[in-house]
Formats: sequence, structure tokens, C-alpha cells
Amino acid sequence: MSEGARRRTGGRAGRQAARAHSHVERVPFLTRTLAPFEVLDEEGLALIEHNADTILEEVGLEFRGDPDALRLLGGAGADVTGERVRFPRGMCRSIVQASAPREFTQYARNEANNVRIGGMATVFAPNYGSPFVRDLDRGRRYGTIEDFRNLVKLTYLSPHMHHSGGTICEPVDVPVNKRHLDMVYSHMRWSDKPFMGSVTAPERARDTVEMARILFGAEYLEDHPVVLSLINANSPLVWDSVMLGAARAYAEANQATLLTPFILAGAMAPVTAAAVCAQTFAEALGGITFVQLVRPGAPVVLGSFASSMSMQSGAPTFGTPEPALVLYAMAALARRLGVPFRSGGSLCASKIPDAQAAYESAATLQPTILGGVNFVLHAAGWLEGGLAVGYEKFILDADQCGMMQVFAQGIDMSENGQALDAIRDNEPGTHYLGSAHTLANFETAFYRAETADNNSFEQWQEDGGLDAAQRANAIWKRMLAEYEAPPIDPGIDEALLEFIERRKASFPDSEV
Amino acid sequence: MSEGARRRTGGRAGRQAARAHSHVERVPFLTRTLAPFEVLDEEGLALIEHNADTILEEVGLEFRGDPDALRLLGGAGADVTGERVRFPRGMCRSIVQASAPREFTQYARNEANNVRIGGMATVFAPNYGSPFVRDLDRGRRYGTIEDFRNLVKLTYLSPHMHHSGGTICEPVDVPVNKRHLDMVYSHMRWSDKPFMGSVTAPERARDTVEMARILFGAEYLEDHPVVLSLINANSPLVWDSVMLGAARAYAEANQATLLTPFILAGAMAPVTAAAVCAQTFAEALGGITFVQLVRPGAPVVLGSFASSMSMQSGAPTFGTPEPALVLYAMAALARRLGVPFRSGGSLCASKIPDAQAAYESAATLQPTILGGVNFVLHAAGWLEGGLAVGYEKFILDADQCGMMQVFAQGIDMSENGQALDAIRDNEPGTHYLGSAHTLANFETAFYRAETADNNSFEQWQEDGGLDAAQRANAIWKRMLAEYEAPPIDPGIDEALLEFIERRKASFPDSEV
Repeated sequence: MSEGARRRTGGRAGRQAARAHSHVERVPFLTRTLAPFEVLDEEGLALIEHNADTILEEVGLEFRGDPDALRLLGGAGADVTGERVRFPRGMCRSIVQASAPREFTQYARNEANNVRIGGMATVFAPNYGSPFVRDLDRGRRYGTIEDFRNLVKLTYLSPHMHHSGGTICEPVDVPVNKRHLDMVYSHMRWSDKPFMGSVTAPERARDTVEMARILFGAEYLEDHPVVLSLINANSPLVWDSVMLGAARAYAEANQATLLTPFILAGAMAPVTAAAVCAQTFAEALGGITFVQLVRPGAPVVLGSFASSMSMQSGAPTFGTPEPALVLYAMAALARRLGVPFRSGGSLCASKIPDAQAAYESAATLQPTILGGVNFVLHAAGWLEGGLAVGYEKFILDADQCGMMQVFAQGIDMSENGQALDAIRDNEPGTHYLGSAHTLANFETAFYRAETADNNSFEQWQEDGGLDAAQRANAIWKRMLAEYEAPPIDPGIDEALLEFIERRKASFPDSEV
Repeated sequence: MSEGARRRTGGRAGRQAARAHSHVERVPFLTRTLAPFEVLDEEGLALIEHNADTILEEVGLEFRGDPDALRLLGGAGADVTGERVRFPRGMCRSIVQASAPREFTQYARNEANNVRIGGMATVFAPNYGSPFVRDLDRGRRYGTIEDFRNLVKLTYLSPHMHHSGGTICEPVDVPVNKRHLDMVYSHMRWSDKPFMGSVTAPERARDTVEMARILFGAEYLEDHPVVLSLINANSPLVWDSVMLGAARAYAEANQATLLTPFILAGAMAPVTAAAVCAQTFAEALGGITFVQLVRPGAPVVLGSFASSMSMQSGAPTFGTPEPALVLYAMAALARRLGVPFRSGGSLCASKIPDAQAAYESAATLQPTILGGVNFVLHAAGWLEGGLAVGYEKFILDADQCGMMQVFAQGIDMSENGQALDAIRDNEPGTHYLGSAHTLANFETAFYRAETADNNSFEQWQEDGGLDAAQRANAIWKRMLAEYEAPPIDPGIDEALLEFIERRKASFPDSEV
């Protein structure tokens, strides 16, 4: 234990408290130290790049309902026919590589929470986009703004979540055309981690930027990305006007976007992994090219969301081997292109936080880290193919994210790590429980899972025989009970609330 | 679908049945195609090898209660003082590399089930060594010979288990000193996959070999390994007489052994991964050296079983990042030495097949495949740190093993896999559900999880709102109900039963 750590604790209770939380150092984002796992060699990756160029050249992408986008792309050398845009081989790559940053920092209002996006950094953000929420007490129900605030607070409190995320759940009790204001405010007010903006209409993206200007100062935004927003392709091979408009609003303000083809293989693309990769890469390249033409140098992230489907029912499936293979290959393609990569998370099809949910989530989260994903949406909370976010699932997933932080550090090969003297001093057949090396290292030796029960069967039974979800239930309740909001300048808070009030009053409620 | 497959099916019901099972081709073992994930570079691995040699040279290993072993090791150049054996630097490596096979085949009585041990092959075997069993109907209880038979049958029936394993559970209703006869017979009679032998006393190992001679023919065993048995070190740095005696019995009969240090870091070794690796490697090298001196060329597998521990309670923990790092490093060390590697599985500390069990199991099974483990004990069924084997957990884990088979094949880069024509023929914005490529590939496109529910929330609720364990419960019951024993020569069966009867009558029951 370091001197600093010792000073912070007081007496036995203090030491116990310190011990309970000392298993993993809070870091603003993960810094991986291990070379990524590769599933394709140079030849395979080059072939997929070639196929993506073939798709862009021969089939092209549609940019729908946005004449400005067509003019911009045509002016840059694309062949535009109606809304179909065909790109000469290599055009997208050269535009992207000329101006898109390889890495960038997304700034938070608490600078200790700034995150690095790209390179060896990995950033965990919570679930996104679910209309339903679930907890053990109340079951499954539509999400509300109170749920949204709760999930922002839990994300703020979790040492394993680096980013506040965006639409953690849909606050269905607020009109569709006004809820973005309440959501963005919640991220700004109840957390001080970086966050995502609205993309459901270009004017909602502009509202997000306006609120960010109030919070950070208008000039600050010019060279500081403070919002990172999710722009989904309408696969196969379409970018629509809503997404293009939102992307433009953010790019014009030099704010960051994730350009993400969302592909349910067999529905939005062929069933095979190599085809999903080529199509995803083509679509993402087209979207990133558009953003770089709007504002060269605007921060972008290449996204890939790929799932298999049940060929019986058409339902999406998660945690199966095929999307993991796609993830690994897409991560390599993004690295070769030279832009940050978004994918993965703790995805599952299960309706409840049971063994299915955990196997599937782990089968997505492990490739997320081993493949080297930079920005991880849905790192905690996801259930039901994204239709629901679970309070208990959030807690369970976050614990797994904590483990990834330790794993990403690799093996400590220092002298203390090698511990050769400890082995020299320990007679064969005698245990290490009291050895000086063990005592010097036990506080930080192993990741301490917050949600696992490692006790004996008898002790576990005496403690009520709870399953992991039941333990997680107690944890999120305790966290919310102990939550304290991060401080905010009262003048800024007032200005934000005033802006929201004015905007809400300026147009009628609508459910679209 | 191949002609052969088509001939097997009849009409619509036949096709549906074929579809339900056609998601993954039954193979006798996995053949990985991807280069393993590495957590240490050349320098790190060489340093651990150097430290292992330092341990062997300076501290040495104890070979207890086996004067023959001491004579053998001393004769080969080791420095023997009492029971302490110190090895000159490099001695073990050169003895092992001179005669231990890099890979070998373990033969099954059904030759279609022969398994390759080593290289790019991975073999899944079930849980080993649990005194307790658990299922949803009867809860946790001591295992019986009926449970043992049930688990042999489930392993036989599972397309994802390649090997029948050994002590899947302890049949506590049979005397300790006779149960090995019933266990080995169960593997021989109720399965035709390869199996493991008894190691709890040298004479029980010899009984196993005798029974194998009855089943396969005495001469056959001379150049065909048909038994693979688990020899655990008594860490730290001790091999005891029981294990040495069993290893000798198998090696003399040219049968295979897994030499496995079982290390709970912090108890049997220092808490740090680099130290666990060096000590594991030293202990395994010593054990393998002994086996190679007993019979040069006898098939051996380098094993590593490493777990973290709770530094509060001393309980073992599973699925945490530290043992995964150890696994990856040990796999690399075994490859460099040039012997097959055993580790991993579906390990967990959870008492029940809940989310904890699944997260932890997945966090062990993924490194098992990505690290390139050759023989995987505990691939299915493990609960409670190995104290219990679960029927439902077995079914859930086996499904995950099936996924690993698909993952290990990597991305299909054939023309059909690239599917460029399918993309060319599909207009932007239109789905692929009815495309010719989809229809041609949908039978085999995606792994079909046997235990996952991918239906809508409403459908799942209508189906009873079951969790994964409840679905698995129905699956194992159906499997046992439909079980049919593989044929066996009645004369051989009679000879086996006669041998068992004679042996059981020749000494009194004992509980040690």
C-alpha cells in the first residue's frame, strides 16, 4: 500500500473500506498493452478492402433526401446519378486519410474524465436506444426520464464506465420531439463524464450543440470535441437525410460522430462474414467521406454493429461466433484505414440477466477488448437485442468491464511480478499465504469481482442463496441511495434550463 | 446440403429434423485455423523460461515417497539430496525435447472418435473430480454411480464433447477403493469416445490399463495410447508418490498423461502471474522429465490449472483476468517446449448456473480457444470451483463449446463467402432475406445455439418465461430419454465385467 493510500484511510474501518474498493484503480479509459487478435492475414484484409471498393464503384451508395450531400460528393469526384453515388476506386480512402484524425480526445466538463478515442485506448459507454427497462422489482416496462436519470447516475458512479453514453433508455414519458433536451441535460447535470448527442433530427443535433456551447463556451467547441454522436447507416448501402443532417450539424461544429452500419446479416447484408465486412466497410467509408467533405478534420469513428440472425424466425442473435469474427476483421480494417473503431459491447438476446445473457455478453465483450475496439457502446445494461436495458444487467456487465481493465494491462514482468526471491525463500510443499511477497501484494494482486459470490456453498446458502442478478439488485439500489451529483456552476445550470424551457415552448409536442 | 445428407432425411419432418441439428458438423475434435493470441513477447517468454530453470536449479522439486524416481532422476544428471531434486539448467528441456512427442493420437474404441492431442487440435472433455452434482429438480447432492453414468451418456450424446473425460463426478455410493473400476467401465461401455484412467493409486492405474487391454487387445496398447490420465503436482514444487506411481504405471504401458500443476495463486505460488507461470513451468517440466525417463516417447501433455483467490476468504475465484493471462502465457511456453498443452475449460465459482457462472465460464473458455489449448478438461458442467458438476451447466457449456468450433474455423474467404455477386445484385435499401445467396447458405450460415432463446419478449413470455437453466433442464432430460448405448462385443463386455468382479472380490471395501 502506498503512503498516499495509507494516509487516506483511517483506522480499521477505513482500511476495510479502502480494501473493498482498491481492487482496480479508476482510470478515465483503458490503455491496452497487447497486440490485437487477428482473424485475417494481409491477403484477406486486402481482399475485403478491394471488395469494398468494388461495391463503392459498381453498386455505389444512396444518399437520400439530401441534395447538398449529393453536390458535395459529386464535387469531390463521385459519380452521382439521382441519389445513387458511385465512388471511383480509392477515392473514399484518400479523402478520409487526408483529413480524418487517427485519434482524438473527447473532452468532459470534468477534465479528469476526458477520454482518448483511438489507438490503444478503449472507452466503455453504457447501453443505447432501448425503449424498455427492466429490474427485478418492477419487471419490464417502458423507460421514463426517471429511469434515464438513474442510469446516468449509475454510469457516473461506476468506475468501469468511462463515458456517460447517449440514449441509455428512451424516456417514453417525454414527447419524442422534446426528450432530447431532457436527455442531454441529464448527461450534463447528473454526470461529469463525456456524453453523446441527439441524432433523431438535424435540429435536435443543433440543440445538442447549443447546449454544449452553454456548458463549455462557444469558442471552446471549435477545437474541442465535447459531443460524440451515433450516425447509423440505413443498410444496405443507404444513408438517409435524418442521419446525414445530424452528421452535418455535428461536423460543422467540429464535434465527433460514429458512422455505423448496423447489419443483421441475412437481412441487411449477405449471411457470410466476409460479405458483411466488405459491405460495412463500404458504407462506413462513404459516411466518413461525407463528414470529411463537410468539415475536413472533424473527428470520426468507423463503426460496425453486426449480428447474426435466427434463420428460422429472423430474430437477431448475439454472442454467436460469426459476429465475433466480423468484429475482429473490422477492427483490423479500421486500423489499416487509420481511424478509431467502434463496435462490440455486452450484447445479448436474452430477456433476463441469466446465463444466456452472460455467455452472450462475454462472447461479445472479449472480442471487443482482444480485437482492440476504441469506443464501446452498449458496454453495460443491454438485454433483448437492445429492446430493453436492465438495471441488474448494467451492474453485472460493468463488473466484467472492470476485469477487462486488468486484462488489458497484460502480465507484470517487473522483478516484483517475477517474484523469484519469493519462490527461492519458500520451501517445497509450504504455502504462500503468509509470505512477505504475498502480504506486500495482496491488496492489488487480483481483480475483485463486485458481483461474484466466491464463498463456500454453505456460506452462500446461509447468505440467502442469491443468484448474481439478485446481488446486482442490491448493488444498484445502494449506489443510487448514495449518489451525490457532481457540482455545476449555478449560472450555467440556469442557462441550460432556460434554453430547454424556451425550446420546449417554441413548438408543440409530437410523438415523431 | 450434400447428397449424403439429403439421403438421410425423409420428407418435410426429416428436413426439419436435419435443420435442427445441421448448424454444426460433428467433428471428432476442433482444428483451429487462427494464430494464437499472445500476451508476452519473445523476451518475456524467455525470461519465464529462464526463471523456471532457476527454480529447478536452485530450489529444485521434491519427489516424495518414490526412491525409484530419485534413482532415475539422479542417474539422468539431477542433483538428488534426500527427496529434493535439483536440475542443472536446461536438463529437463533437453530430456523432454529428445523424446516427448509434439502431438499424438488418443485412440477410441470407435475410431471415428479418435482425437488428436497437440498442434492446432483442441479436444473438449467434461468436468472432472466433483463430489457433488446439481440439477434443477433435486438440487445439490453427493454424486452417485447413476449420476456418473448419466454424465457419460450426456457426453457421448453431445456433438460438442470430443472426449468422455474421467471422474466426471465422484460416485460416492461406491467404495473409494473400487469405484475406479465402475467409472472406467462406464466410459468403456456407455460411450465410444476416448477416456481417462484412474490416478488415485498406482494399482488403480494398473487396473485401468488392464481393462484397456481387455477392450483394445494387449498388443494394441503398445503403440496406441487409449488412456489419457490426469497427474497433478502437489504444488508448490512437490510430486508425491501416488501421482508418481500412477504416472509410472501409465508411461510403462505407453499410455498418455497430463502433468498438471494445480495452482491457486497466493496459496501454492506467489500472487503474480509471471511467478505462477515460472513455477508451473518448472513443476511441469520436472514431471514430464520423470515420465520421459520412465519410458522415452510416452505421450505427455503439459498442464496448467491456475486460479486466483479471494484475498479476504482464501476461496478460489474463476473467470478473473489474471488466470486468463497465465493461460495465454503457459500455452506459448508449451508451444516453445514442443509438447501438447492442457488448460482452461468452463470454470466458475458460482454455485448455480446463473449469470456469474456464465460470465466466469466464458472468461475461461474464450482464452482456452484463443490461446490454443489442446486438451480441455472441465469444458462442460463445472460449478462451485469444481466441488459440483451441474446437469444444466453441462448442457449450457456444451453449447458454448459448439460455438468455439465455428469460431476456430475463422472467416470463409471463398467466393461464396465474399458474396460479391449477391451484393451486386441487391439494390440499396432492399433486404437479403430472399436473395439466392441467402437461400443457398442459410442452413449452415450461423451457429444455432441450442440453449438460447432468441424469440421476442412476448413469445418468450408465452413459452413460460424460462431462463437458460430451465431450458437446459428439458434438454438433458430429453437426451437421456433418447439415449441408446453404442454396441460392444458381448465377449469383451463379459470379460470386463468378470475382471471387475474378480478385482472387487479380491480386497475389502475401503473409503480411502
